[in-house]
Amino acid sequence: MLYAVILAGGRGTRFWPLSRRAMPKQCLSLDGGPTMIQRTVTRVLPLVPMERILVVTGPDMVEAIREQLRGLPAENILVEPSPRNTAPAAAWTAWEVARRHAGDDPATICVLPSDHAIADEEAFRVALTIAATAAEAGGLVTIGIRPDRPETGFGYIEPAAGTEPVRGVRRFVEKPDRATAERLIAEGCLWNAGMFCWRADRCQAAVRAFLPRTAAAMDRLVAGDRSAWGETDATSVDYGIMERAGDIRVVPAEFGWSDVGSWPALESILAAQTWGTGVGDVEALRADGNIVYSRDRLVALLGVHELVVVDTPDVLLVADKREGQRIKELLDLVEQRRGSKYG
Amino acid sequence: MLYAVILAGGRGTRFWPLSRRAMPKQCLSLDGGPTMIQRTVTRVLPLVPMERILVVTGPDMVEAIREQLRGLPAENILVEPSPRNTAPAAAWTAWEVARRHAGDDPATICVLPSDHAIADEEAFRVALTIAATAAEAGGLVTIGIRPDRPETGFGYIEPAAGTEPVRGVRRFVEKPDRATAERLIAEGCLWNAGMFCWRADRCQAAVRAFLPRTAAAMDRLVAGDRSAWGETDATSVDYGIMERAGDIRVVPAEFGWSDVGSWPALESILAAQTWGTGVGDVEALRADGNIVYSRDRLVALLGVHELVVVDTPDVLLVADKREGQRIKELLDLVEQRRGSKYG
Repeated sequence: MLYAVILAGGRGTRFWPLSRRAMPKQCLSLDGGPTMIQRTVTRVLPLVPMERILVVTGPDMVEAIREQLRGLPAENILVEPSPRNTAPAAAWTAWEVARRHAGDDPATICVLPSDHAIADEEAFRVALTIAATAAEAGGLVTIGIRPDRPETGFGYIEPAAGTEPVRGVRRFVEKPDRATAERLIAEGCLWNAGMFCWRADRCQAAVRAFLPRTAAAMDRLVAGDRSAWGETDATSVDYGIMERAGDIRVVPAEFGWSDVGSWPALESILAAQTWGTGVGDVEALRADGNIVYSRDRLVALLGVHELVVVDTPDVLLVADKREGQRIKELLDLVEQRRGSKYG
Repeated sequence: MLYAVILAGGRGTRFWPLSRRAMPKQCLSLDGGPTMIQRTVTRVLPLVPMERILVVTGPDMVEAIREQLRGLPAENILVEPSPRNTAPAAAWTAWEVARRHAGDDPATICVLPSDHAIADEEAFRVALTIAATAAEAGGLVTIGIRPDRPETGFGYIEPAAGTEPVRGVRRFVEKPDRATAERLIAEGCLWNAGMFCWRADRCQAAVRAFLPRTAAAMDRLVAGDRSAWGETDATSVDYGIMERAGDIRVVPAEFGWSDVGSWPALESILAAQTWGTGVGDVEALRADGNIVYSRDRLVALLGVHELVVVDTPDVLLVADKREGQRIKELLDLVEQRRGSKYG
């Protein structure tokens, strides 16, 4: 029986000022439609009913998530006492599923990020089904995205040679420089998209083996001792579990995936306009390559290029598109000088 | 007895989207303080009481002007049926002053733009007093600003040789190219700032001589026939009167004058900040040379340079500073595609 776990604890500061502590990236609509987490849930619903979807999130954003996922049972939202990266969050769901699962069939879990975009949902579900099947048979399985550019912002996975839908994994490669990324692509490496499948018991065994402190904390946590959370290993699933396990499998896939990592990524999920791309009412003269996000206001562009313009009720951001990675630095400056009200 | 006439009929589209039909540039505060027309009135009050200040404006903006100049007698606002440039407006005030003036002393009028900035108000009033004295003696007098840069956007006045405070005028020069502007400055030419002084009867005589259709229309207009307005010569004071008269005088002056002709001119009237200059709450990282105007919102700038960012309740403008002159073109595009609601 398949469970879906949606990791929704991130703050997503790279979408500031639209994203805020109480309204992080996964709670936003970046294309004017349903929010990212709503889409993430809808996307798996043909495979997993609401009762078997768990969402892990933080106290700041739980309200927004409850609001956006009204069909989700209240007990399916796990609220992390503090952010400890993805390994404790994923482990918690394995312990929870093991505790809740009633049937004799194995409980299989797919762990999914809450804030990625997927263009071809059917292809995604095919890949997920393949991964879940391999996981049910006992594997620790990840989905690997076929790269379409030498991206330096992602980790890579080198699959074993072969053409099967489920392959062995030779190694995980951390974020490479550009030359390395080009070589990795030529060698057939895949992007690590942070999607994992495993049986609950198999995940528990891996956590006990590689993160014994976390495993002990989980035993106490599901017994009701929330203070145990602080004793988990604050590490990622990749570092804490996958890279230490010897028998990882990968499902190579292609389904129009984007991590939508910063404002310029809107170009990969929205239609191009003469002035650039974005959401909202725009009029422009001699402008191109811009990213605009505005809900309430007409944005008039004149002679500007490669800008990010984000209009929110209390903050207006105008940034150079190439500086997208520095938005957190700007946010830090704003919070340092004006307190947390704009964060 | 001195009267002041404030010409406030312009629309000032170069400050769109802050300036609108019903709230043109003269009704705006560009520095966060009193509005331009309020400052224009306050500036002459030590010389001319409210009862002798006339404002000429258009029907769209009369409401805002009444609101802003509450001490001004209602009958001192002359509402032009349609915009006909400055000569008919100035002529109308000469006819009105001639009709209203009661004493035996001559009625002298200084005609002033409503939307210019003047840093040294005392020096301005000294120049105006000199000009008014020369006008009372019968001259058609203009104030000429000593240039501090080879500006190509203004007309120039070549004064006769001499060092007197009131000089003859050799010629008016239309907006020059840059090389010509440099030569004009070297020759001692002055900027034409659109400030004129004359006796009411002297102005009437000049209008009768050079713009007889306008003079005839004025006779009918002050007798109550508003339809006469359409028969005036739609021309400027400079072209229609000053350049045709033989005996113009000029008062060379220097009082920190700026016509504040477009958003970048804010640099000449506001203090510089690390990120540029403007009005409002701004936080910036790696940004400089920008012009920002925002009343309600924090403006966050990241890695941007030489931009104009103007935040209004319904329109947000982001423009290249060098494209300031094209704002009207953008406004035309907006109105063409969305009707007049943003104009």
